[in-house]
Amino acid sequence: MSLLPDPSHMTALQREGSISLVGAGPGAADLLTGRALARIAAADVVFYDRLVSADVLALIPPSARAVNVGKEVGQCAWPQDRIDRLIVDSALQGLRVVRLKSGDPSVFGRAGEEIAAARAAGIKIEVVPGVTAASAAAASILDPLTERGRFDRLVLATGTTLAGKAPENLAPSLVPGTRLALYMAVHHADLLQAGLAAGGLNAALRVTVVSQTGTPFERVLRCALGDLGQEVRAQGIRNPAIIFVDIPLAQTVSDSAGAVALA
Amino acid sequence: MSLLPDPSHMTALQREGSISLVGAGPGAADLLTGRALARIAAADVVFYDRLVSADVLALIPPSARAVNVGKEVGQCAWPQDRIDRLIVDSALQGLRVVRLKSGDPSVFGRAGEEIAAARAAGIKIEVVPGVTAASAAAASILDPLTERGRFDRLVLATGTTLAGKAPENLAPSLVPGTRLALYMAVHHADLLQAGLAAGGLNAALRVTVVSQTGTPFERVLRCALGDLGQEVRAQGIRNPAIIFVDIPLAQTVSDSAGAVALA
Repeated sequence: MSLLPDPSHMTALQREGSISLVGAGPGAADLLTGRALARIAAADVVFYDRLVSADVLALIPPSARAVNVGKEVGQCAWPQDRIDRLIVDSALQGLRVVRLKSGDPSVFGRAGEEIAAARAAGIKIEVVPGVTAASAAAASILDPLTERGRFDRLVLATGTTLAGKAPENLAPSLVPGTRLALYMAVHHADLLQAGLAAGGLNAALRVTVVSQTGTPFERVLRCALGDLGQEVRAQGIRNPAIIFVDIPLAQTVSDSAGAVALA
Repeated sequence: MSLLPDPSHMTALQREGSISLVGAGPGAADLLTGRALARIAAADVVFYDRLVSADVLALIPPSARAVNVGKEVGQCAWPQDRIDRLIVDSALQGLRVVRLKSGDPSVFGRAGEEIAAARAAGIKIEVVPGVTAASAAAASILDPLTERGRFDRLVLATGTTLAGKAPENLAPSLVPGTRLALYMAVHHADLLQAGLAAGGLNAALRVTVVSQTGTPFERVLRCALGDLGQEVRAQGIRNPAIIFVDIPLAQTVSDSAGAVALA
């Protein structure tokens, strides 16, 4: 079976194809934007990632072909260059291609490679932004990503770059006043904990892990940084999840009783 | 005139009030989520910020009272504690209160103070996440916020904390492999440029400024960090805007001809 869409979807008059990189948001169908819904409704073919939820997939109209190009982290069943070729070839056939990505396509979504491939082929391309996972997790637990006077800065990083190496180079960027949000990192929780400790962060810093945000299976783990690896394992927390690490401003730390001290 | 909503909105049977902190997204009406639209449609009163667009305000039903609690940056016509009291008092009257904030409420939206006020008063509160300005700007200019192997990390910071001081403490967090997105900072472009230079960043680093994202008035300025203040002034760029500063990974810098070197 060819993975390319059925040519019968095309009209006799060759239409100009296009590619929309669409943010599917955190999973709930009512957290997509109106523009995302419109692009999905008009699609001839939808190439979607593994993390796109069943509720969102249910929005794909029966007239569109839906193709799962998702891969488990660390596996490479669908290399990025194959996806690039596939979306471009489909658009060159005149199809309206939706490339559906969980969260926001611009955040750890490898959108740049797909944009470059489309441009190289002269294909019309757009990005429809979405609600990124950190925003959704913060909303769900009512704990904003920034907090005036405590967390003036938010750092988004990804666990996929942690594989095989401790994240020593993460620690220097975590000056007081920072909240760190780590995407797809719970399977590297031990590495993360060790790397941040090696980088000088205090083991007592507060960590919050939110998995499966907004679903009936949402879980929230709160612990000290020094217990992160052990707690993630003990509680069986899995991706998709966000790990928040809080490095509050020093003056806030000394002002509020019970807050942790920085290393 | 009282700023509290008209009590005639209430049914004879006292209803339980609630507060929804709703993300209005970057401005376009089709970039709100379905959940945001539902909360606005069901609202008795909507308290909105200055940056919420006319297109979004047009979504507020005639049956709801709409109150502008926005303030210019640096002005304090509506202190935060007054807004906190107002939304809580309205909910205590049994009203469905929507607090409409541009972008995502959890990103530089002072949501934490409103959540704390609601909790202290025993009011039901939720956060409806939205598309944050950095995601929208990145989508609009087709330049993703992260890029595998070049920008593994995204730092969100705000210009409102720059007032009266150079952002020396920003530079240490900008290790190679980082893209910095600064919210509401163009009026401090000179300070920012000076602070990042004092912190050791190379004046040749690439900067991109996107103002009024997604509107017919969108403008994109690309320049070197060393020219930022001058270019912002020369071109009359104003808030709302996002300033992106790119600090690519060192190996990428040396690999690609024409890319800038780090200091």
